[in-house]
Amino acid sequence: MTLDTRPLGTVGGIAASDSHGRFGPDRQRRPVLELDDGTFIAECTAITEYLDALDGAPALTGTTPREKGLIHMMSKRAELELLDAISVYFHHATPGLGPHVEIYQNAEWGFRQRDKALKGMHYFDGVLKSQPFVAGENFSMADITVIGGLIFAGLVEVPVPAECEALQAWYATMQERPSVKNRVTMSAPVEASV
Amino acid sequence: MTLDTRPLGTVGGIAASDSHGRFGPDRQRRPVLELDDGTFIAECTAITEYLDALDGAPALTGTTPREKGLIHMMSKRAELELLDAISVYFHHATPGLGPHVEIYQNAEWGFRQRDKALKGMHYFDGVLKSQPFVAGENFSMADITVIGGLIFAGLVEVPVPAECEALQAWYATMQERPSVKNRVTMSAPVEASV
Repeated sequence: MTLDTRPLGTVGGIAASDSHGRFGPDRQRRPVLELDDGTFIAECTAITEYLDALDGAPALTGTTPREKGLIHMMSKRAELELLDAISVYFHHATPGLGPHVEIYQNAEWGFRQRDKALKGMHYFDGVLKSQPFVAGENFSMADITVIGGLIFAGLVEVPVPAECEALQAWYATMQERPSVKNRVTMSAPVEASV
Repeated sequence: MTLDTRPLGTVGGIAASDSHGRFGPDRQRRPVLELDDGTFIAECTAITEYLDALDGAPALTGTTPREKGLIHMMSKRAELELLDAISVYFHHATPGLGPHVEIYQNAEWGFRQRDKALKGMHYFDGVLKSQPFVAGENFSMADITVIGGLIFAGLVEVPVPAECEALQAWYATMQERPSVKNRVTMSAPVEASV
């Protein structure tokens, strides 16, 4: 599948191309998928749902009810316990995106969230001791969410603890996936398109 | 569909029946659905995905890729902008579940989240000005998430602002649904089953 992509510039934390608030309540939501009929779909898991369902053979969000349930459960946990926690740490307990964007910071809360993310890494380490992928026997959206969390954690210097050997081993395997290898190109900084 | 239900007691914030951490990383996750094969599925949206997929005709999570994408987007927004924000307000800026459970509180963050929830109500008011339901033309999981947020908000005395007329009107209609009418019975306090 090929998608046309274009950068959405940011001015003071506001998506520069979104003069009508179509992208969401705070106008900061990226990525945003624009459908041929003009519909916008934001939020990563929602975009994944849409794209995965297109050909009628979902590969990332599950086919059986049990798979769907477990994948959504584990992806949600990856957000709660890792990705969101790291994001809050970044925006509240580090300089984040700079003083023009981070107009309110709560450092104490931010450091608590870093601790939560480290606890989350231990949780996923436990999960991966007994199964090859985050939601079970197959690669899924839940793995992608954990990968996203660990990439973000690496960028803000919250590495996976050495004792989390199962998580480390799984992450090393994930690095071999073409999508993960190519992510640097995809997320390279771009000039604001204002 | 009929499900056997039983209360999961709480002792100091820990689900009393979960001695093996099966319910999630912090052992506080409710509700939990136990399948016939012994699998546990937690996280509300994941349980909804599972149950909704069982008969092959999902009524709450969408059938077309576009519906799936929009429903997941709006449900996620209802969590981010309303339900989660109210929950953090409750646990951090009010006595919450009491001193034995709320061992760490960050009141400043809690009040910020109350403000965020009020902003979220205005966002959903705007959405409901142009469409009958949260994710479009049909009732979906996204409506349920907003209903959950507003019920919680009412309990902690953060009512819908009077000027949010579309949200008020939609919420009045939602109150007529049997599932919403019956929720008081379902969520009545129960003794801890320890």
